[in-house]
Amino acid sequence: MVSSFSLGVIALLSTMIGTLVGRLGGADEKLVNQGLFGFNSLLTGMALYLFLTGPYHWILSLIGAFLAAIVTAALMHVMKNTGLPVLTFPFVRLTLFTLLISYRLSAVHISNALVPQSLWQWKLDITGPFNLKEGIFTGIGQVFFLDYTISGILLFVAVFWAGWRYGLYALLGNAVALVTALVLGAERSLIFVGLYGYNGILTAIAVAVVFNTSKRPLSYVTGIFAACLTVPITASLHSWLLPFGLPPLTMPFVLSTWIVLSVRKVLPRL
Amino acid sequence: MVSSFSLGVIALLSTMIGTLVGRLGGADEKLVNQGLFGFNSLLTGMALYLFLTGPYHWILSLIGAFLAAIVTAALMHVMKNTGLPVLTFPFVRLTLFTLLISYRLSAVHISNALVPQSLWQWKLDITGPFNLKEGIFTGIGQVFFLDYTISGILLFVAVFWAGWRYGLYALLGNAVALVTALVLGAERSLIFVGLYGYNGILTAIAVAVVFNTSKRPLSYVTGIFAACLTVPITASLHSWLLPFGLPPLTMPFVLSTWIVLSVRKVLPRL
Amino acid sequence: MVSSFSLGVIALLSTMIGTLVGRLGGADEKLVNQGLFGFNSLLTGMALYLFLTGPYHWILSLIGAFLAAIVTAALMHVMKNTGLPVLTFPFVRLTLFTLLISYRLSAVHISNALVPQSLWQWKLDITGPFNLKEGIFTGIGQVFFLDYTISGILLFVAVFWAGWRYGLYALLGNAVALVTALVLGAERSLIFVGLYGYNGILTAIAVAVVFNTSKRPLSYVTGIFAACLTVPITASLHSWLLPFGLPPLTMPFVLSTWIVLSVRKVLPRL
Repeated sequence: MVSSFSLGVIALLSTMIGTLVGRLGGADEKLVNQGLFGFNSLLTGMALYLFLTGPYHWILSLIGAFLAAIVTAALMHVMKNTGLPVLTFPFVRLTLFTLLISYRLSAVHISNALVPQSLWQWKLDITGPFNLKEGIFTGIGQVFFLDYTISGILLFVAVFWAGWRYGLYALLGNAVALVTALVLGAERSLIFVGLYGYNGILTAIAVAVVFNTSKRPLSYVTGIFAACLTVPITASLHSWLLPFGLPPLTMPFVLSTWIVLSVRKVLPRL
Repeated sequence: MVSSFSLGVIALLSTMIGTLVGRLGGADEKLVNQGLFGFNSLLTGMALYLFLTGPYHWILSLIGAFLAAIVTAALMHVMKNTGLPVLTFPFVRLTLFTLLISYRLSAVHISNALVPQSLWQWKLDITGPFNLKEGIFTGIGQVFFLDYTISGILLFVAVFWAGWRYGLYALLGNAVALVTALVLGAERSLIFVGLYGYNGILTAIAVAVVFNTSKRPLSYVTGIFAACLTVPITASLHSWLLPFGLPPLTMPFVLSTWIVLSVRKVLPRL
Repeated sequence: MVSSFSLGVIALLSTMIGTLVGRLGGADEKLVNQGLFGFNSLLTGMALYLFLTGPYHWILSLIGAFLAAIVTAALMHVMKNTGLPVLTFPFVRLTLFTLLISYRLSAVHISNALVPQSLWQWKLDITGPFNLKEGIFTGIGQVFFLDYTISGILLFVAVFWAGWRYGLYALLGNAVALVTALVLGAERSLIFVGLYGYNGILTAIAVAVVFNTSKRPLSYVTGIFAACLTVPITASLHSWLLPFGLPPLTMPFVLSTWIVLSVRKVLPRL
């Protein structure tokens, strides 16, 4: 809310819409209270508000928030047999799908920031200023599309408030993702606005805290490993989505977490 | 058959091939009688006959019809655990897959109508004549790749013959899809040849009639909602498939219906 | 090993890494002994060593071999409900994913042989020398990325050593894939280095020998049919992957075998 009043209103309304759909639709009370419907709606509403433009983009964002709750329910059913959580997959899928509508329906306008490019004309340029201080705080902000240092600091405070483990793994996940991205030679212009860090944060928290109910000692290591893994996944998804001009959003978090949770069932010692 | 004799022969032979594969292969009698094998073969045979060219395209169409029955069986097995019907997904998948073969095998020739384009050079042009009368009847024809008004009228008669509910939801599905496409600013050159309507028709019938065995009152509303949803899905799929020059076929119907059927399991009140 | 010493070392180390991950991770002893972890690691290590360049590509290959065992475990869990084997799908998925990292991380360099191209500028040119003798022996070599005739002969000897059925179906699978590719007009420059044959070999062995425990008589015909099917699948995947400049690897084998194994459950007489 610090960074934009209207974005905050959209975030609030989106969450309410998502939770309402879950509740009125008669979903399992537990699922609604875990915030699964609300969270995917929140992220979808915010993403569409930021990546779409034009006079009606706020209406489209709220419709998107509504559809996010619907798609969340659908994917919960489809994925039930795998035993894997849907995480933010409904948000990613729906947002990427919606953004491409703009090329065919004149009522929907996509932001100029999202430009389709061909892979054969792409030149990698990793140069840029080295700004470690910003890198620490922008990552957590990017979870909610905020690239202001001050929003990042406030979010870190909020996460520590929720539990010191959450805060610790948020810091660690961000740090290892940053280091991995620097070592592998990622674009600094992306690293220091937090675009390589936010998936690391979400993954570390998910693997080491949220989905670590049996408290196995190795899980802390796995959490760090999974956070590092988001860096190459982010890079690869960037390439796959380049011809469509789309961002990978939180898909690296989803993939990395799914891999770890699946692996645990087959390799129980990890 | 009104519009093309050879297309009618291919349609007939394709259906026979599909049904035969189901029966000789020893499939569950019920599945064969529901026409699942025949319908996917029929659509695949017709689509390949229309979208491929060259002297042997009728042979390739019939081979495609045979493979459609095989792929239908395979997908039935893969999707069994989700509890979702395969619908026309085997046809869509196989046809899109087959059309792209033409770029690598010189015996297969793709129609000039299907041109790969880059998203970064694409310009949306929605202008065109406003022809509501055609829009009403071409949609149902496009289910079978026919864009003649007269074929559409005959098909509507056939659908009403099958049951008044089918006819009613065919009309309603087409109408709401047309209105949604006009409101969202789709290309008129596509709207009025029925390319935004046919997925609405199939979806409304599937959601409100075929898969509505428990006759819940809200299902009629859901059917209309699902038909509207096919419009943005069609637009998005057009963008995704643009670099390959492929049409979305009945994939919007498949996705929209799957979403509704899955959601019902998690949000039972909808 | 005949063709390259360093490639042999990478192959050996990759297999060891894969098997170790399976064993130390506590996987079902049977799965490890079937070589599922080792085989996917072996192929991934070799593929990355060949398709990546730069001073550190051998390190990246071994990291890839490690991750292949992880992804194998993950996909085993995800696919458990379908009753289908993972085959070499972990290798294909991971390798394609890893190769695209190179466009975004400067520590990873992709080989010049893999060039992204647009489908709208692609011209098919099937001309080339007709060299049947090479075609017979290069196919089996290509399973392990070797296009030397002598390696192919040695591998055939090894396969016959493992059992005469394996050898017979390797020869047959290669032969029918070659003939299908010639009849359908594939590029001779690909056919006679074995790039249309190796998927036919793997598929014929898998369908007619490995997954044919009930020894049904029709399985031998199905094996040949499935080997032919890899040819159009290879062609189509080549087109889908053209904008990314990626090879289809053993994906045609995976898809063709999955189709046959799924179909058998629904059409039991085939």
